[in-house]
Amino acid sequence: MKKAIGVIIIITTVLCNRAEAQDSSLFPKGEIGKNTNNYTGTIWLSELNQPDSNFTFSLAQAVYAPGAKLDWHIHPGGQYLLITEGTGYYQELGKPVQVVHKGDIIKCLPGVEHWHGASPGSTFSYIGATPTQKGKTIWLKRVTDEEYNSGK
Amino acid sequence: MKKAIGVIIIITTVLCNRAEAQDSSLFPKGEIGKNTNNYTGTIWLSELNQPDSNFTFSLAQAVYAPGAKLDWHIHPGGQYLLITEGTGYYQELGKPVQVVHKGDIIKCLPGVEHWHGASPGSTFSYIGATPTQKGKTIWLKRVTDEEYNSGK
Repeated sequence: MKKAIGVIIIITTVLCNRAEAQDSSLFPKGEIGKNTNNYTGTIWLSELNQPDSNFTFSLAQAVYAPGAKLDWHIHPGGQYLLITEGTGYYQELGKPVQVVHKGDIIKCLPGVEHWHGASPGSTFSYIGATPTQKGKTIWLKRVTDEEYNSGK
Repeated sequence: MKKAIGVIIIITTVLCNRAEAQDSSLFPKGEIGKNTNNYTGTIWLSELNQPDSNFTFSLAQAVYAPGAKLDWHIHPGGQYLLITEGTGYYQELGKPVQVVHKGDIIKCLPGVEHWHGASPGSTFSYIGATPTQKGKTIWLKRVTDEEYNSGK
């Protein structure tokens, strides 16, 4: 009996370690997006700071399951995306989809309508740095299948 | 002869791939710190953006070899450090050294005298987000061995 418990403990430990190894996000994954109406698929968002009068920008980690994507949106103050994992898509209105990878940096200017998401076959993570003085993200329409598939 | 060249190409490719695999930094490592008088050891700094009127903060990746450390310094606008790799030390004046790890976030308030560096046995990397409106970093004195070793 003791031997069986020992075996179970060992198996559980091995499985847990494997699960940890698979979660490669830099910071705890945080909650699955609270606002359920501005994305499709599974996206975990983790706010890394609290903007205030000294720090007028938000820092956040986003982790996307393969195929997950945000709706079209606008940042009134712009945004930097520092891509930390995987392969994703980024598109500004009127331009083709860009395929982007770990190590790439995206500068999105204030007021530019755009969307981003994971490619179909890869998780995708970034740290977003977003000026907060000009107001919150403006959410627009869903990304269509045609728009998304143009990145393939 | 052709066979020998083929073998050399294969060996070189394998060695190059290994070297790349060993460099685990998220973004290209960039140059070794240009200002040679504000740190000890080996530190690679990579500026990830160019602050401007829209983006009033700098984003930079720093990679420290084991034991490398910055001098005591002050950020007039404060700084966030998002630790992305390894184990390091962080100390504010008058407080004990904190041992910090991948996944930790340090908020350093404006005007606070402090230093940070890698622990003796680990590389150490972070992404720093630094407000730029209140001016540049003010460099102070070297970290003494006694101060550094108090983190062990």
